[in-house]
Amino acid sequence: MGFHLAPEACNCSAPDTGNIEILDLFGTDEHREKWLKPLLQGTIRSAFAMTEPAVASSDATNIELRMVRDGDHYVLNGRKWFATNAMHPNCRLLIVMGKTDPHAAPHRQQSMMVVPIDTPGVAVVRSLPVFGYTDREGHAEILFDDVRVPATDLLKGEGEGFAISQARLGPGRIHHCMRTIGMAERALEAMCRRADSRTTFGLPISERANVQDWIAEARIDLEQVRLLALKAAWMMDTAGNKGARTEIAAIKVAAPQVALKVIDRAIQVHGGAGVTADFPLAQAYAHVRTLRLADGPDEVHKRTIARQELRRHRS
Amino acid sequence: MGFHLAPEACNCSAPDTGNIEILDLFGTDEHREKWLKPLLQGTIRSAFAMTEPAVASSDATNIELRMVRDGDHYVLNGRKWFATNAMHPNCRLLIVMGKTDPHAAPHRQQSMMVVPIDTPGVAVVRSLPVFGYTDREGHAEILFDDVRVPATDLLKGEGEGFAISQARLGPGRIHHCMRTIGMAERALEAMCRRADSRTTFGLPISERANVQDWIAEARIDLEQVRLLALKAAWMMDTAGNKGARTEIAAIKVAAPQVALKVIDRAIQVHGGAGVTADFPLAQAYAHVRTLRLADGPDEVHKRTIARQELRRHRS
Amino acid sequence: MGFHLAPEACNCSAPDTGNIEILDLFGTDEHREKWLKPLLQGTIRSAFAMTEPAVASSDATNIELRMVRDGDHYVLNGRKWFATNAMHPNCRLLIVMGKTDPHAAPHRQQSMMVVPIDTPGVAVVRSLPVFGYTDREGHAEILFDDVRVPATDLLKGEGEGFAISQARLGPGRIHHCMRTIGMAERALEAMCRRADSRTTFGLPISERANVQDWIAEARIDLEQVRLLALKAAWMMDTAGNKGARTEIAAIKVAAPQVALKVIDRAIQVHGGAGVTADFPLAQAYAHVRTLRLADGPDEVHKRTIARQELRRHRS
Amino acid sequence: MGFHLAPEACNCSAPDTGNIEILDLFGTDEHREKWLKPLLQGTIRSAFAMTEPAVASSDATNIELRMVRDGDHYVLNGRKWFATNAMHPNCRLLIVMGKTDPHAAPHRQQSMMVVPIDTPGVAVVRSLPVFGYTDREGHAEILFDDVRVPATDLLKGEGEGFAISQARLGPGRIHHCMRTIGMAERALEAMCRRADSRTTFGLPISERANVQDWIAEARIDLEQVRLLALKAAWMMDTAGNKGARTEIAAIKVAAPQVALKVIDRAIQVHGGAGVTADFPLAQAYAHVRTLRLADGPDEVHKRTIARQELRRHRS
Repeated sequence: MGFHLAPEACNCSAPDTGNIEILDLFGTDEHREKWLKPLLQGTIRSAFAMTEPAVASSDATNIELRMVRDGDHYVLNGRKWFATNAMHPNCRLLIVMGKTDPHAAPHRQQSMMVVPIDTPGVAVVRSLPVFGYTDREGHAEILFDDVRVPATDLLKGEGEGFAISQARLGPGRIHHCMRTIGMAERALEAMCRRADSRTTFGLPISERANVQDWIAEARIDLEQVRLLALKAAWMMDTAGNKGARTEIAAIKVAAPQVALKVIDRAIQVHGGAGVTADFPLAQAYAHVRTLRLADGPDEVHKRTIARQELRRHRS
Repeated sequence: MGFHLAPEACNCSAPDTGNIEILDLFGTDEHREKWLKPLLQGTIRSAFAMTEPAVASSDATNIELRMVRDGDHYVLNGRKWFATNAMHPNCRLLIVMGKTDPHAAPHRQQSMMVVPIDTPGVAVVRSLPVFGYTDREGHAEILFDDVRVPATDLLKGEGEGFAISQARLGPGRIHHCMRTIGMAERALEAMCRRADSRTTFGLPISERANVQDWIAEARIDLEQVRLLALKAAWMMDTAGNKGARTEIAAIKVAAPQVALKVIDRAIQVHGGAGVTADFPLAQAYAHVRTLRLADGPDEVHKRTIARQELRRHRS
Repeated sequence: MGFHLAPEACNCSAPDTGNIEILDLFGTDEHREKWLKPLLQGTIRSAFAMTEPAVASSDATNIELRMVRDGDHYVLNGRKWFATNAMHPNCRLLIVMGKTDPHAAPHRQQSMMVVPIDTPGVAVVRSLPVFGYTDREGHAEILFDDVRVPATDLLKGEGEGFAISQARLGPGRIHHCMRTIGMAERALEAMCRRADSRTTFGLPISERANVQDWIAEARIDLEQVRLLALKAAWMMDTAGNKGARTEIAAIKVAAPQVALKVIDRAIQVHGGAGVTADFPLAQAYAHVRTLRLADGPDEVHKRTIARQELRRHRS
Repeated sequence: MGFHLAPEACNCSAPDTGNIEILDLFGTDEHREKWLKPLLQGTIRSAFAMTEPAVASSDATNIELRMVRDGDHYVLNGRKWFATNAMHPNCRLLIVMGKTDPHAAPHRQQSMMVVPIDTPGVAVVRSLPVFGYTDREGHAEILFDDVRVPATDLLKGEGEGFAISQARLGPGRIHHCMRTIGMAERALEAMCRRADSRTTFGLPISERANVQDWIAEARIDLEQVRLLALKAAWMMDTAGNKGARTEIAAIKVAAPQVALKVIDRAIQVHGGAGVTADFPLAQAYAHVRTLRLADGPDEVHKRTIARQELRRHRS
């Protein structure tokens, strides 16, 4: 019955993709040999630990996990959550963002480290349910309690954490957006099929003008947002992640917004069935809703776009 | 941490309320003695079985569960779902809507029966998860396979099912709307507290003008929708359920819409925490979202209001 | 053809209403005799001059018109606009807000004066068109060039201007909102009649589900916003303008928003005719659109409501 | 002060563009010599007369202007309006849609004729104001009273009117949309500059998060809608007007919607000035608002898109 979105199936690869990018760009030869290879072969999985439960993590200066130098090690203390994939049975690696120098300039306070998940002091505390759904791979909450990590596992250098995270996020965001658009396309298809298959008050639902408006608006919105995703990808290829900053932020905001509207209306057309597990619509909604928060809430990305736009008109 | 909505706790009483209303208005002395008394004492629970998985049940002529007269019994065959409460350990009673005469006038085809849940042929098949949440009391799918029910348990008379359902739904809808408004008030409070407690880019979130707009719009919308709920209740008291038809339909559409907007923004202000179980926001969202479908989707109620409005301007 | 809103007809009384309120509360015996009487008798008209073209006047500290004490007079220099009624042939009186002390506390810098429109130095420069419409009574731009006004025509005292404006605005806003709701009711009626009278693709427009949704949403929204207006008025009567502050701000924001949505959809149902002068819809739209700016833009009022709401949840 | 949109300046060429297209595709040699040449040289202007005041003209079967064969002439009787350009001093030509056979198949009832504006019986009755604005070139109402036109001036053949109108409308719609997007870009620029230049409560408006959200949403929406316009144009070039049907309908709906949202918010940021003639925002709004009705209301185009989409998922 219905169609197959399997959002959890494709979703789980996202943190690996970003981590692969990081290790490829900033890893040592040893990192590449030990972690990048098996990640590319798919024999191990990894998670990315940036967001913290206690602070608004979209502002990187709020990060509280401390990384204190102690001889040739750093000692990590703090708490992370929404570390997607960390509960996957094959997860072996965490890439962790923390603060090495709270007194440096705002974007030089953070550093990033490669931390094997079995390092003593690392405790995966629990999996966070999202709208009642618990993925097998998990959005994990992880406690770091006096975790000692060799200084050689600091990526690129002290104070480079923010820059690395920026390099990482662009591609990850595009991946999420493409999948999001795909989910919305499937929801639109489901809406059409359902509207054709049910009748109320003597008319197939697909002949009601309000449902036709929803279908048309979905198609109009999806055409636009797909073109924006393509442009953002093309900008990344031709102008680089930094040159594509506005486009990446724009698609990060636009894709979930369009998809949520389409999925919500598809749910409405499905009636009660739409909120159950008989169709993947409610789960898709829950998944896409979290994307308006993951890697920074919409408002942070809009702020970036607005400041860029204001600057353009000042010159 | 956070506040306590316990939507499932209050939600579960709704079907009982409606059933109590039905038994009080249309039950025989025996029904009142055997079912109404323990329901009022709270020693048993009951469920209402109207919606069907195979058809758009908002159009009552689509109902497919058959009630065929056989001597002094009716034989019931069909499938229902979203029978809230049916999995409650104390649930003893079902009130079931079915079709006695498919050839009668559209609103005279349906009848309603009192069916003990342990009647042979009644099978509670499964509990329907809603956005990943499974209530203890359950939104049950129930199969009726040659269920024999004494003809004396037909309420009011053959062909009275639609009229009874109308009598039942008014009060039930108001109850839902009041609880919905209460949830939205709680979400607004949570949004304010959270916005005060977190800081980004040097400012408490509560001082950002976009979040202030959300808070103000929530207050403006809630003031209005509460007044509408009060008016609808007052109309029911003074003009009766029929005279209050437009107001009941209006609040049935308006309350969930306002609440979903408020809860969604509260989630956004909470960041990742908003979609988890650490706050009741995501579950409240899922619950209220189903109210846009329960007892008929928004579109059916809007149709009623529009036809009423058009009629007014024709005279 | 169509119906009669005559927004300009009712609109013109609004500044008089506010000025009558001011003179009644804060005028001297002479003011009452000379100005209040003929205003109440309707033999003269008056305008209120607060907004300035050069600054964001919603923040009273931005007001630039200077009132400088010189012996037993004040000398006024500055420019005002949106002085509604000032071009009415019977307009004799201006009530002018200006700054007497730029170094006082923010809300003690302003004062208010009674200024006959024929005082030397007062020049009504032009009438401001609104969306292409020019009212006979005018939204005037007025230049004050060394205008000498007796100190006895200062209302209440130096530094009282802001407090007087607050006292004045509450009732004025309610009047605007009531008329706005009335216009929206008329637009809804027009939408229904038009939808009934035209046919496309074999169906009266009134039977299309999207137009039915618009009609229903208009009714649902109007019921709510009318109740809010009634509550705001009742609060003003029972708790005073200050106690009703949140309700007044809420209705000031909500009424135009609801009305614009209804009028815009009525225009859409009227086709090309909707934007012409054959129906009063476009003019009503233009008029109501300005209400989202008059007496402060929505954003200023939302800010007030949000700060109030945040305060409630801090205690 | 402000910037220059001059919507009326570019707007006026639109009907000529469409008429040029028609004459080029379907005109006789004589038509090309007599009308097409001077139109291309810009020495004369023309108008297109399709919409009628008495019926919902978006459904072509509603057209009431009769074209009755009488010997080697047709006699035209009826009333048209929104004939843009007809009041231009150089306007010499009308292209008129009418009904030759009310009993033919729905899309074979209409024919199109070339009618010199000085033909006896043609009376330009009045110019229609749009939101209070009256263009010099006019949206004219034209009465046809026993207008005799040679049969040789019927374009392509009897019953070809609908097909010709379809051929004509695609390019015209794209032109409108491109200008609409340009207006919205200008409005966004004006919004940014104004937000930078005014201060309330101690902050430039451009630093308020709600205004920043508006600016960001404008940029996000404009990026998408521009890409859709480019795709629609590319589809017309590569797949033809018919193959581009969905894209043309989509951009016809999307461009005005995006532009209206941006312009409305730009008005809000400009305060009272935004609705006056000191800035071109209100006039741009009025102009773009009519585009949601011109060449068929949004709802007709959405219906087309929805039916197309539903068809795709049936196979």
